[in-house]
Amino acid sequence: MKLLSFLLDGQPSYGALRGDGVVNLGRRLGARAPTLRALLAADGLAEAARIAAGSEPDHALDGLHLLPVVPDPDKIICVGLNYRDHVAETGRTLTEKPALFARFAGSQVGHGQPLVRPRASTDFDYEGELAVIIGTGGRHVSEADALKHVAGYSCYNEGSVRDWQRHTSQFLAGKTFAGTGGFGPWMVTADEIPDPAALTLETRLNGQVVQHTSTGLMITAVPALIAYISTILPLLPGDVIVSGTPGGVGMKRTPPLWMKPGDVAEVEISGIGILRNTVIDE
Amino acid sequence: MKLLSFLLDGQPSYGALRGDGVVNLGRRLGARAPTLRALLAADGLAEAARIAAGSEPDHALDGLHLLPVVPDPDKIICVGLNYRDHVAETGRTLTEKPALFARFAGSQVGHGQPLVRPRASTDFDYEGELAVIIGTGGRHVSEADALKHVAGYSCYNEGSVRDWQRHTSQFLAGKTFAGTGGFGPWMVTADEIPDPAALTLETRLNGQVVQHTSTGLMITAVPALIAYISTILPLLPGDVIVSGTPGGVGMKRTPPLWMKPGDVAEVEISGIGILRNTVIDE
Repeated sequence: MKLLSFLLDGQPSYGALRGDGVVNLGRRLGARAPTLRALLAADGLAEAARIAAGSEPDHALDGLHLLPVVPDPDKIICVGLNYRDHVAETGRTLTEKPALFARFAGSQVGHGQPLVRPRASTDFDYEGELAVIIGTGGRHVSEADALKHVAGYSCYNEGSVRDWQRHTSQFLAGKTFAGTGGFGPWMVTADEIPDPAALTLETRLNGQVVQHTSTGLMITAVPALIAYISTILPLLPGDVIVSGTPGGVGMKRTPPLWMKPGDVAEVEISGIGILRNTVIDE
Repeated sequence: MKLLSFLLDGQPSYGALRGDGVVNLGRRLGARAPTLRALLAADGLAEAARIAAGSEPDHALDGLHLLPVVPDPDKIICVGLNYRDHVAETGRTLTEKPALFARFAGSQVGHGQPLVRPRASTDFDYEGELAVIIGTGGRHVSEADALKHVAGYSCYNEGSVRDWQRHTSQFLAGKTFAGTGGFGPWMVTADEIPDPAALTLETRLNGQVVQHTSTGLMITAVPALIAYISTILPLLPGDVIVSGTPGGVGMKRTPPLWMKPGDVAEVEISGIGILRNTVIDE
């Protein structure tokens, strides 16, 4: 099942994809589960699947204003330096543990919405990544149990403002500019993706392949990320783990390849789909 | 005016301090402003002051289960390395820009609630800091206008799990363990603190002074922090900026001075009050 969040008449809702249409689950479930995050908190995936299977689509997908898959997560936890080729191109050293930093929800945009190059900088870079969306919360989750806590997967373009990222040792400033994090187009539920380490991830800028990897090349794999993070604090339904980008970022090219207004950035992951955003200036 | 958040019969509310009592504003304002964050979003400080002035207290402060001053902020942005004596003791170099990292809301505890030393580590350190609570949101706020966006100030103990903070270059892992961020006891509204650079901040562990500074010694002062952060993304009402800790942290003592179960940690800021938490084990 593919679940997506969208804006309709100015109100956020979410639904399930059926062919070229969308069954509006937010409308059908109402106060019980008005958002995808609330659906996950209510353990409602099975009910959502039943409703979607028994309903005609309410909306055409084409033209729908998509929101970030989870517009309002409690936490967005990003993983830096999680592919060897990216660690190598940055000149950094491998660490035994994953490098975690945050994004705030206000930095996210949905599929088809513009990625925003800020006024503050032209050093605006792409980062194609696999996003992991938590279904069942928990603390001290073991690696063996970790994938049972995953609701599904999506594509993420972790747009990065490189000069601000390098203002200090801490990445956050360059990683949470408004409108820089593409998240979509939808969440594919975990039953359709038994192994998140067996996916092909590709980033394209204006059709040119700029990143290409297997998610099996992550240094810290998804189960170990979940175990590590849940040692720190409880994971909650709807939390998003953005699992790191492979080599090929624009910053490390000669000359650097920055995203500029009019550019089309795509992140495609096998079994999920294509996240596509056009770049505009703030 | 002093505003505080608390738990009553399992429900979050907030109120204003009057003498030894608390006027329950959450109950009086109901759906219009059920939380302090919602009050700030509704620009309700003046109305809150009128209600508080005209009401008898509903609850004794003593015995009330206090919550973090803002339990549910959209963003908690922490500033690292913002006092020269702390930069010096860590052996790091000064940067022109402030080092920002995040905390998640689930890491916070209120005044009088236990600070939690996690199972994962005994390297549990204190960090007394001035917390700045945003009242009026905004993007691209100028330094000259910045203090107009502040609703008030509070004390913060930015409890840090040092070995996890040093797992990688990124501080987040050691900075957002559940129950490690003391935030309270209350917010003093900005009309009572015209200059956040003229405060005395002191941290005590079991009564012993371990940190003592003037907030005037911040490297990046509060107005410049607000200008810098709001260049990145909009500040929203209720957002919390935790403005950095001075020298004297436990990690840099010989031997290191870690917080352990039974210890009493206090952060006192002139014109605000004393945040006091006792340490327990997870």
